[in-house]
Amino acid sequence: MGAAMEHIYSLSDGPTDKDLLGNKGANLVSMTRQGLPVPPGFVLTIGAYKLYKNSGELPHQEIEQSVAILEEQTGRRLGDGLKVSIRSSAPVSMPGMMDTLLNVGTLEKIKLAVRQVFESWDSPRAIEYRRVNHIPPDLGTAAIVQTMVFGNQDPSSGTGVVFTRNPSTGEKGLFGEYLAQAQGEEVVSGARTPEPVAALKSQMPQAYAELDSLSRALEAYYRDMQDVEFTIESGKLYILQTRSGKRSGQAAVKIAVDMVKENIITPQEALGRVTFKDIQALLHRQIKSPEKYVPVTKGLGAAPGATSGKVVFDVLEAMSAHKKGEPVILVRLETSPDDIQGIVASDGILTVRGGLTSHAAIVTRAMGKPCVCGAGDISIDQSAESFKVKGQAVKKGSEITIDGTTGNVYLGVLPVEDVELTEDLQTLTRWASGFKHLGVMANADTPKMVAQAVRFGAEGIGLCRTERMFNEPERLAMIREFILADSALAKTEALEKLRELQQGDFVAIFEELRGIPIIVRLLDMPLHEFLPHEAETQEAWLKQRIEELKEINPMLGHRGVRLAVTNPELYQMQIKAIERAKAEVPEADVSIMIPQVITSQEVFLVRGMLQDPNIKLGVMMETVRACMRAGKIAHCVDFMSFGTNDLTQAVYSFSREDAEKKFLTTYLEAGVLRDNPFQVIDIKGVGRLMETAIFWARRANQDIKISVCGEQAGEPRSIRFFQGIGIDSVSCSPFRLQAAKLVAAQAAIKAKSEAEREFSAELC
Amino acid sequence: MGAAMEHIYSLSDGPTDKDLLGNKGANLVSMTRQGLPVPPGFVLTIGAYKLYKNSGELPHQEIEQSVAILEEQTGRRLGDGLKVSIRSSAPVSMPGMMDTLLNVGTLEKIKLAVRQVFESWDSPRAIEYRRVNHIPPDLGTAAIVQTMVFGNQDPSSGTGVVFTRNPSTGEKGLFGEYLAQAQGEEVVSGARTPEPVAALKSQMPQAYAELDSLSRALEAYYRDMQDVEFTIESGKLYILQTRSGKRSGQAAVKIAVDMVKENIITPQEALGRVTFKDIQALLHRQIKSPEKYVPVTKGLGAAPGATSGKVVFDVLEAMSAHKKGEPVILVRLETSPDDIQGIVASDGILTVRGGLTSHAAIVTRAMGKPCVCGAGDISIDQSAESFKVKGQAVKKGSEITIDGTTGNVYLGVLPVEDVELTEDLQTLTRWASGFKHLGVMANADTPKMVAQAVRFGAEGIGLCRTERMFNEPERLAMIREFILADSALAKTEALEKLRELQQGDFVAIFEELRGIPIIVRLLDMPLHEFLPHEAETQEAWLKQRIEELKEINPMLGHRGVRLAVTNPELYQMQIKAIERAKAEVPEADVSIMIPQVITSQEVFLVRGMLQDPNIKLGVMMETVRACMRAGKIAHCVDFMSFGTNDLTQAVYSFSREDAEKKFLTTYLEAGVLRDNPFQVIDIKGVGRLMETAIFWARRANQDIKISVCGEQAGEPRSIRFFQGIGIDSVSCSPFRLQAAKLVAAQAAIKAKSEAEREFSAELC
Repeated sequence: MGAAMEHIYSLSDGPTDKDLLGNKGANLVSMTRQGLPVPPGFVLTIGAYKLYKNSGELPHQEIEQSVAILEEQTGRRLGDGLKVSIRSSAPVSMPGMMDTLLNVGTLEKIKLAVRQVFESWDSPRAIEYRRVNHIPPDLGTAAIVQTMVFGNQDPSSGTGVVFTRNPSTGEKGLFGEYLAQAQGEEVVSGARTPEPVAALKSQMPQAYAELDSLSRALEAYYRDMQDVEFTIESGKLYILQTRSGKRSGQAAVKIAVDMVKENIITPQEALGRVTFKDIQALLHRQIKSPEKYVPVTKGLGAAPGATSGKVVFDVLEAMSAHKKGEPVILVRLETSPDDIQGIVASDGILTVRGGLTSHAAIVTRAMGKPCVCGAGDISIDQSAESFKVKGQAVKKGSEITIDGTTGNVYLGVLPVEDVELTEDLQTLTRWASGFKHLGVMANADTPKMVAQAVRFGAEGIGLCRTERMFNEPERLAMIREFILADSALAKTEALEKLRELQQGDFVAIFEELRGIPIIVRLLDMPLHEFLPHEAETQEAWLKQRIEELKEINPMLGHRGVRLAVTNPELYQMQIKAIERAKAEVPEADVSIMIPQVITSQEVFLVRGMLQDPNIKLGVMMETVRACMRAGKIAHCVDFMSFGTNDLTQAVYSFSREDAEKKFLTTYLEAGVLRDNPFQVIDIKGVGRLMETAIFWARRANQDIKISVCGEQAGEPRSIRFFQGIGIDSVSCSPFRLQAAKLVAAQAAIKAKSEAEREFSAELC
Repeated sequence: MGAAMEHIYSLSDGPTDKDLLGNKGANLVSMTRQGLPVPPGFVLTIGAYKLYKNSGELPHQEIEQSVAILEEQTGRRLGDGLKVSIRSSAPVSMPGMMDTLLNVGTLEKIKLAVRQVFESWDSPRAIEYRRVNHIPPDLGTAAIVQTMVFGNQDPSSGTGVVFTRNPSTGEKGLFGEYLAQAQGEEVVSGARTPEPVAALKSQMPQAYAELDSLSRALEAYYRDMQDVEFTIESGKLYILQTRSGKRSGQAAVKIAVDMVKENIITPQEALGRVTFKDIQALLHRQIKSPEKYVPVTKGLGAAPGATSGKVVFDVLEAMSAHKKGEPVILVRLETSPDDIQGIVASDGILTVRGGLTSHAAIVTRAMGKPCVCGAGDISIDQSAESFKVKGQAVKKGSEITIDGTTGNVYLGVLPVEDVELTEDLQTLTRWASGFKHLGVMANADTPKMVAQAVRFGAEGIGLCRTERMFNEPERLAMIREFILADSALAKTEALEKLRELQQGDFVAIFEELRGIPIIVRLLDMPLHEFLPHEAETQEAWLKQRIEELKEINPMLGHRGVRLAVTNPELYQMQIKAIERAKAEVPEADVSIMIPQVITSQEVFLVRGMLQDPNIKLGVMMETVRACMRAGKIAHCVDFMSFGTNDLTQAVYSFSREDAEKKFLTTYLEAGVLRDNPFQVIDIKGVGRLMETAIFWARRANQDIKISVCGEQAGEPRSIRFFQGIGIDSVSCSPFRLQAAKLVAAQAAIKAKSEAEREFSAELC
């Protein structure tokens, strides 16, 4: 190989050091070493770039020597049968940002081209790209000089790109495109349309067989699905590049599981190959090929999933269509508890007003029903039974499709793909359960939702809200009776009726548990939310009562356990209903959770209402004061569950709904906040408070169980943080259970491998 | 004295140990020891009570021996010229709770009476009294057996009670009552009316002179104004009891200052003799002898002080009456920013609706103007220009008197006493300033209030709010112009007009400072609060804009620095106005404070608007997140001021107004909370958070100044806590400055004496 060189390595014997040769260079060396048919060449190191940058000098002698070696390897002379390409090779990917020169056939052009590639590191667009992507400007690039191979040489030549498995479905086997008698640029430019790679099988069976076997070898070597660029020159196959292939969520899950079965990777590694988003994408009904359709308007993606149905504006119409089995989309200015039956009867909800915490958004998210909120372009004309959007009138009964993931609204019925828990996903989740420490529970409020949560693998129901039980018209009437009762007797009668109904609800819920525990949260809603709007009534006394109960800041008002302090009979009724239901379903593992607690005194008050010693009692940690008093409160409860939605509102003094409507977007756009704290836990504010509270709570009661049941409990970064601060379990939407388990397993595996690394470092 | 006794001590040679002889017993021993003419007697110790309680036995032998000694001392025999009284003497005062027996003349009756006194410790009313007053039930009582003296013996006998100084004004000299030829019971029962003690001077000059000189000796001995019970038996003066006399606020201040001048006590002690309440009582106009009048109704005492005036229902009428110099009381259902001119023009405000944080309450408290809120018994009949209360109609122009301290409303004009900073109070406050460490600043928003704060001795203006500057009709119109502007030009023009006016306001304020510093807080109010109520307008576009700006939880909404993130031009305008005003009054020491901060990013944003390097920048610490990020925020500010009103709301998740209206009373009544956290700082929740924040802030920036400007900054227990956690200064209403300084001095003196005690303990 001649004298050892300082600034140049041959592909056939260079190191695989990315910091020396850049990504592409190191990759080519690695492929060559595996014996793959890589066109020969050499790499000018990043050191050579730095030398050039500082002195303007290239290592001429080394280049000449390397070209000589290349001529020897190929048996051809530069310019006489031998042409080379010169490409950049940086340690980080900067696709298309730097220059590439092809078909270089003289030494002087060799050298000029290298200069050009090196100079292009400092081209304006490369500088801008690095700035945007936070890449250090002094990283530098290597340059690859490689023999050109020609896919357009003759009829037994061609070029293509294959994935070793289907990147959309994950199915095993070559998947990709091939273009006969062409160079790669022609495929990229779209000047000619390539055929499926299967075409190669009939045209050049031997080359196809070689490609197939090389692909399998590449997968085995890199231990992942590969995206391979190849060229055939006069019947000879060359591999130009290989890298891990991008894939859909479905493919990610299938490939990860299959590769474990094929003994290529371990279950542990399989868990690292799938992301939270991959799984989430699998779990909502989606529009097939949405790029083919133009939405008529866009609102907020309030509850994910896509669905189609006929437009209705009225709750009763929604219910009658539902009875006939017709899918409908309820279109409203906004929704209220009075609409609940209509929401239940509809396949999707579309509102003109309201944000991500509007009634429609909250209710539909909990139901797992698609919803688009705040589609402000729409104006509803109730009398004409139609809505207008961008000049188009959409009549009652017209079919529309809404996508609650993106917020898009389409006219007509679009093809939609269904949700299913595939066998592969179940396998992956089973592995995740083997590694993770964090419990993963589900929020569920009705027997149907509990059954679904159990089917989706919930380890418990971490939050069963009782508000919604009051929202059915019959019950709403009763709670109103209670609130408006003018005598103690009337009050007691209304409560007794409610108690019977609630008891029935709880029996039905407990029967669906199949061995998993449940935490029932007592009523948190302020009473006035059960009353009609003031404008809806003509009766003066009712108007006055509504006025009396009205609050200036309902979020900080007369709700949660505060109701139990002023009106103990409500919680007494609920606790009695739970106790009697448990007596009917004695195997149920039931806990009761108190919302909005600020002091242990409130816990004592509720504890005094509870008779069954087998029912555990805990608090929702959603006020800052509860966090400051966590030690004292921990003494007198069995568990705590951080309600990170309300807690975040209190820590920020942000009303979520007002904030998301008025200023939170500006905060994010201006970079004043990095994330929406209602989606991703605010580690430095809310998180710090939680850590402090957990420290005090565990010091006071080492057996206490601590969980999180706010929206952030289903978000991956937040889940990692919760695991880090010693949370026992999270409780999220049933649709997030799989993804949450995955993230919990990933976090546990990472923590374990870090611990192992530390241990081995100590032995050294 | 015979054999030493175990359970009985003579008044003439007993110890002055209250735990042994009870208060009264120890006091009588002490008086006897001073050589005062105390009727002789002896005390059965608390030990004797305990013996009796356990065994039912009395120390018969010791009693007989003591009676014998008494007979010897008086030269009379029991039953034959010698009669005794038997009274209880507990270590804590339980006035009237236990039995007293008089005129006991036989030994067996002695003994029975002692039993009765001992038994009365366990009487139901004594038990109840101890329960209510948290007195331990096993404390027990001593029993005093004392020679009876008879004020009804003959014409040169009598009985009376004197204070050594006037308990109402503090003036020096005997003040009290005397009843010739009578026993004390006759004075108490009111059967006969006593004369002023001066009558004794003419009737028995020698006895009077002796009383006067003894009183002075008692004062010198006890070093406080005394309340002395005396009896004259056949010309001979006996002192029956003496104790520190109860006194009015005014008297407390005068006596404390006079006694320093008389070299009886030190200034340090004088500060300990006056309470926060004493001073507060001095600083509001009060009804003279309110016990003489029956209020017609009662509301909430929203802003203290009493005042009279003619009833008006209309803002314009209030203004025209004010111009004529007629005092008026504005009576409204409730008030809004539109009424501000009417409030300014009125002498007092009376509202039917609204609590302690209603608009009327907040505005009037800040103005120091009496206000009674939420007088729900009143119904206003606008058309009849009258209001009805308890069947009575009160017409426009009728005179009423309101007492904003008690909430009472009276018909007619009642005599009212004026506020003044007496010379004595000024002297006392000067002494306080010499001892205290805590800075005491005032909240003041207008030139008039700043001038008053300076006159009242404010060491700075700790909070100058700019909201109210917008509330005058002319400015309200301009801010509305800005909010509703449909073009950038219109916006800029409205802002420029506002800037000019604000600049003028600040110049006027800065000119009143006379050397003290000021902290100006930037706008905190949400924009929608500047708009009229939706019902007040007919214009559809305005209704829509109002609807757009409306918020569900305005307390947690688009306000404070959040306005600066979305609409930077508002804060830019205010900062420019402050900078230019400072250029006009260059000697002014000006700081700017940012409200509602949650992150240092917001501080950077506002810092970028500020050009004058001599203006300091700080934040209002009123969100929990600011507390959690105190270290980071402290890095980039000169000072922090805890806004404990909003902070308490955030820590509790209580909206103050909703809480006080709906459930806070129940929380206090049920003992779930001990104090209203909006009045007394919640040490265990809010306080703990503050402590943590202060620790982080000082660690990050040791030069940072930290103050408190919430309502609790003017409450004595809270002030003591703030001093304890290292707060540099508090800022309160100008009317609380004197009292706050007193409390700060008391806290400093206490801390110093505790440190000294520790030091001397170490030397032992």
